[in-house]
Amino acid sequence: MSNFGFLNLRVVNPYDVAFREARSAVGAAVVMKSAKEFESLARAVGDCSLVVGTTTLRNRERHQPMYRLEEGARRIRKAMSSGRVALLFGSEKVGLSNDDLSYCHWLMHIPTREEHPSMNLGQAVAVCLYELIRGGKVKAASANPQATSAQDLERLTEILVETLRESGYLGENASEVSIAKVRRLVRRLRLEEGDAELWLGMLRQIQWRVRRR
Amino acid sequence: MSNFGFLNLRVVNPYDVAFREARSAVGAAVVMKSAKEFESLARAVGDCSLVVGTTTLRNRERHQPMYRLEEGARRIRKAMSSGRVALLFGSEKVGLSNDDLSYCHWLMHIPTREEHPSMNLGQAVAVCLYELIRGGKVKAASANPQATSAQDLERLTEILVETLRESGYLGENASEVSIAKVRRLVRRLRLEEGDAELWLGMLRQIQWRVRRR
Repeated sequence: MSNFGFLNLRVVNPYDVAFREARSAVGAAVVMKSAKEFESLARAVGDCSLVVGTTTLRNRERHQPMYRLEEGARRIRKAMSSGRVALLFGSEKVGLSNDDLSYCHWLMHIPTREEHPSMNLGQAVAVCLYELIRGGKVKAASANPQATSAQDLERLTEILVETLRESGYLGENASEVSIAKVRRLVRRLRLEEGDAELWLGMLRQIQWRVRRR
Repeated sequence: MSNFGFLNLRVVNPYDVAFREARSAVGAAVVMKSAKEFESLARAVGDCSLVVGTTTLRNRERHQPMYRLEEGARRIRKAMSSGRVALLFGSEKVGLSNDDLSYCHWLMHIPTREEHPSMNLGQAVAVCLYELIRGGKVKAASANPQATSAQDLERLTEILVETLRESGYLGENASEVSIAKVRRLVRRLRLEEGDAELWLGMLRQIQWRVRRR
């Protein structure tokens, strides 16, 4: 990250020992010292207007668009001009869970050999960030996001799930799988910030109506 | 290496313990099992017609052309159609020595941030190999090299150094620095294979003449 100028690391429920040891990484002290810990992925990506998951092509039921790194990086660079972008990496062994992936607008994969698709985590991060700065230098993200933040999308998702429950569309004990489906549905809307507020207002009104009955 | 389809690893004087432990790397068993050990860099790159050294932009007296990775990879892909290419990486801590670099036709650097130019070895390798396969797939090197092998270039260098010594241009105890200069001089010639043989013939004749006096 530090090599390529990406200085904002966010970690979700890190394994404490490994995380503390990693603070000694040569040259990357700035990144590690300013790393922020979060208890949930939803909070970690709360202020981001684009959330991109990294995964391999293989062994994955895909519900989202998947781009090869070269194309994904092009889209990320474009999105960085209108808001923060979160690039998600899973753990070395299992990668991102289906629940993690449901927070993503789309997915990205590194073009690896079919016979050996799974990469070392540190190397995968290096390759993705290199592609982002390739041929130039990445500018700091604008502080003036116009796209909808993940936080607002998640609020919308929560109200929608509640309303679907209360209206009987989802059972009281709806599975994580069903909720993840709704979450992806909301991400696919690609809402502008103003529209998200309109939708939130409409949903709240509907929810109020549902509850009154 | 295995992720991106590069299966020929050559190691020069590896630290035995680390090398044996590394054999257990997940998914890369093929590469590690077929890795070849060499006692010297000259032997390791003997059959290669292009030898490229990797280094940072900083802290290095440069005597060779230096290309940024994007441009270097373009040149490497082109060279792979006419012979084997060696991509050299130094040790994690000190990189390639000036003597190592003197075996290179040219040097290449990854575009890192000025404040943090030095990369983790595994990550540097991953980024370089990714750039080589970027936008497509790398084909196996042709078995029909037309460019001069490093072995022939080194033979030429040896005879030239001997002749320069015997003719008094270089002292009997010429330093490694002077010899490295000659080595780089020969690499800069970019000799075709046929020409290298001609040059060898000419030099042998000159050497014979020098010795007769």
